Amino acid sequence: MAQENEQTNDFSKWYLQSIQKADLFAYGPVRGTMVFKPNGYSLWEKIQEAFNQKFKESGVKNCYFPMLIPESFFKKEADHVEGFAPELPWVTRAGEEELEEPVALRPTSETLFGNAMSDWINSYRDLPMELNQWANVFRWEKRTLPFLRTSEFLWQEGHCAYASEEEARERTMYFLNLYKEVVEDLLALPVYDGQKTPSERFAGGVDTYSIEAMMKDTKAVQAGTSHYLGTNFAEAFDIKFLNSDNHHDYVHTSSWGVSTRLIGSMIMAHGDEKGVIFPPKMAPIQVTLIPVGNIKKNPEVLTRLRAIEDALKAVGLSTYLDDSNNSAGYKYNESEVKGVPLRIEFGPRDLENNQCMIKMRDLDKKFEVSLDELVERVQSELEIMQKRLYDKADAYRHAHEHTEIDSFEELKAHIARCEEKGEYPGWILAGWDGTEETEAKIKEETGFTSRNIPFNPPMKKTVDLVSGRPAKYTVWFARAY
Amino acid sequence: MAQENEQTNDFSKWYLQSIQKADLFAYGPVRGTMVFKPNGYSLWEKIQEAFNQKFKESGVKNCYFPMLIPESFFKKEADHVEGFAPELPWVTRAGEEELEEPVALRPTSETLFGNAMSDWINSYRDLPMELNQWANVFRWEKRTLPFLRTSEFLWQEGHCAYASEEEARERTMYFLNLYKEVVEDLLALPVYDGQKTPSERFAGGVDTYSIEAMMKDTKAVQAGTSHYLGTNFAEAFDIKFLNSDNHHDYVHTSSWGVSTRLIGSMIMAHGDEKGVIFPPKMAPIQVTLIPVGNIKKNPEVLTRLRAIEDALKAVGLSTYLDDSNNSAGYKYNESEVKGVPLRIEFGPRDLENNQCMIKMRDLDKKFEVSLDELVERVQSELEIMQKRLYDKADAYRHAHEHTEIDSFEELKAHIARCEEKGEYPGWILAGWDGTEETEAKIKEETGFTSRNIPFNPPMKKTVDLVSGRPAKYTVWFARAY
Repeated sequence: MAQENEQTNDFSKWYLQSIQKADLFAYGPVRGTMVFKPNGYSLWEKIQEAFNQKFKESGVKNCYFPMLIPESFFKKEADHVEGFAPELPWVTRAGEEELEEPVALRPTSETLFGNAMSDWINSYRDLPMELNQWANVFRWEKRTLPFLRTSEFLWQEGHCAYASEEEARERTMYFLNLYKEVVEDLLALPVYDGQKTPSERFAGGVDTYSIEAMMKDTKAVQAGTSHYLGTNFAEAFDIKFLNSDNHHDYVHTSSWGVSTRLIGSMIMAHGDEKGVIFPPKMAPIQVTLIPVGNIKKNPEVLTRLRAIEDALKAVGLSTYLDDSNNSAGYKYNESEVKGVPLRIEFGPRDLENNQCMIKMRDLDKKFEVSLDELVERVQSELEIMQKRLYDKADAYRHAHEHTEIDSFEELKAHIARCEEKGEYPGWILAGWDGTEETEAKIKEETGFTSRNIPFNPPMKKTVDLVSGRPAKYTVWFARAY
Repeated sequence: MAQENEQTNDFSKWYLQSIQKADLFAYGPVRGTMVFKPNGYSLWEKIQEAFNQKFKESGVKNCYFPMLIPESFFKKEADHVEGFAPELPWVTRAGEEELEEPVALRPTSETLFGNAMSDWINSYRDLPMELNQWANVFRWEKRTLPFLRTSEFLWQEGHCAYASEEEARERTMYFLNLYKEVVEDLLALPVYDGQKTPSERFAGGVDTYSIEAMMKDTKAVQAGTSHYLGTNFAEAFDIKFLNSDNHHDYVHTSSWGVSTRLIGSMIMAHGDEKGVIFPPKMAPIQVTLIPVGNIKKNPEVLTRLRAIEDALKAVGLSTYLDDSNNSAGYKYNESEVKGVPLRIEFGPRDLENNQCMIKMRDLDKKFEVSLDELVERVQSELEIMQKRLYDKADAYRHAHEHTEIDSFEELKAHIARCEEKGEYPGWILAGWDGTEETEAKIKEETGFTSRNIPFNPPMKKTVDLVSGRPAKYTVWFARAY
């Protein structure tokens, strides 16, 4: 099929066209920025709502920190400034006045929270302190892609302080698990959870954990991260507390974040040749209702369809009745490219037979449903579809996992074979000896980077892919966004 | 009373101490910025929730635009750039690279929405277009005050386009009325609605309308604005639509906003000598529960108090049971300075008598309530308090309205008299001949500025306060934040 090739042959083009047809975004006037159009922003609102509820239930408090960070703050944590400096936009002037000290647009806010926590935390009674903010952040990236990598993006960043390493580590994992849970449930997006290698670690952190998702082009997206920061920021910003033994100790801090790139990941994991497919829980519109045939001759069709729409709305579904003058075929297509999970077609004969046709966005067949059981059926079909999208994505990723490659030669041969056949190279589960050297060689020569050291690898690897030395870790490698 | 004098004698000091004691904010590291601490941010979340619901009900769609605005955008609307240029922070550098064109941190987003709407609007079928975003904005102010005037603040900005002036004006008023409704209901803050004079109008607009509130020091706060922008931005950004007669017309645009300054206004309008008083609908904690007497001897007191707390939580109230080791008196004070609307005191004798003591934050007396009717009573007392705070603020503002001053000499004498007596000068309802000259003179010599031309003035003025010429308008003048 020619259309299918559009997704398979030029995935980037397919992605950009799909998010445009679904009316999710527009380019901003400044390089690498984007507008979240109402459909696109509603996706972020749903993500916010789900996480906010979970965060609040677990005792996290929302707050808001200023966006501007003094240059001096970055310099307090050497690795942190080194990691972020190349991407920082700087405000140097206000009105006509040159600023005495340039201020950066936040790329992340460990330094601001650290600075504040050193004031706010005095004794063990102030701990744990678990804060979160929803904010815009800035990283001046060379190559950008809407939702996935933009100069400005939206995210939440949790910043926490604890009395002990044990508690800090335990909560670092808690929030990673929470990410996995929500992303798999809400976005129907299966993820690999694991630990990042040191070279991919957060600048200034001790250990970084991530959830990683596979897109349809088998590239990886780092969909969320949770960092144990040790006492690095506590030392840099002097965050100490009086413990129950009357000694002053440094707190142990952590931070964790998910961003609007989740939206791009969801689309790249579920879309098909026609465009985006929204999991029902995320869809801006869950059900389109389309009158079929000559409405002017059969005004009753529209009247009845409106009643059906009201019944669906009454159970909390978001609906759109397309009563425009376009042809039914045009409307079907519109509903598909907008990614609407379920479409109801209803014409004069359906009216007579007290039924309608249902078409699920991700299936080819249509089926008849009696109007008497329509509401329940729509609800159950949407639930089934949510699960089906997850299962499809899960099957897809497992089909593109390669656990059989044990040497660098095999990897290069595999990649060459895929390129020849026009196939995606998938993810490689490989043994790693723990040296930067072998990781760097893989990246340099294949573009594959370590994604994470999975908590539950499908198997244990014993030999480093490159060096042939005994493997200390089993690691997922993939090309990534 | 010495304490009362703190609010009356040095209102600024009272304000800063009050918001500090209530743990609402901290200063940010960059000049004029602030941190919204969890208690302070929860106030904004409540405001967001109330407005979001109203906006969505009325068909407005949320979206998100980039924060960075190219210099060239400002120059497209001459009045707009003139109004905002002195306060704009500029990003001139990213990483090591100087930007080709400096980009500003948004002070407001008419230019960005205008630029996008010129792409998005083609025909009358695309209209009306009513968009809103929740965002951080920047105005590099010389004098700042937490919540009321900060270099970065949070707000919502609605941006709309319509086919006709009539519809645009009708909706401009609709959103102003919505502001009045929510601010009066949720914040218990009575406002004056009216039209701004040209000198106080939005830079680039045709007509600006505002709601204005009186603080306890009788200064005014502009609590929300709604602007009819005519075709100014449509012409600057070429936003045209094909009307039903097949002609291309400019759209008529409007914009409207409320910001985190609402939080400061609420506090300055309701607080007393002890500190902040939250209207029950806004309070981060609505009810504090305080055990009285020796808890170790009477563990049953705490057990029972926890059961009471659970019952209050079950009906959706936010509660805090203070079981710390501090004295009851200390806890009472803590609850008051935190602005908690209702306090429950419960000791061994209360346990015996199946009752508790209730103290409302804004009243001096305590009263007994049977535990059998406690939940209903707490709910009704909170409702009554919400209404009472509104009524008090309403009585306060009316007591400080001056409608009897008809000449500049009288105004100056009034101000001198107030200064002598240590009284607040209030608001002056004055006739205005419509010239910039008289308005400027009042501002220059007294610091009073025109607040608005109220829709429902308590009386009509016939003579200009300064020139003695016939008045065209009746205007509120006041000192303002």
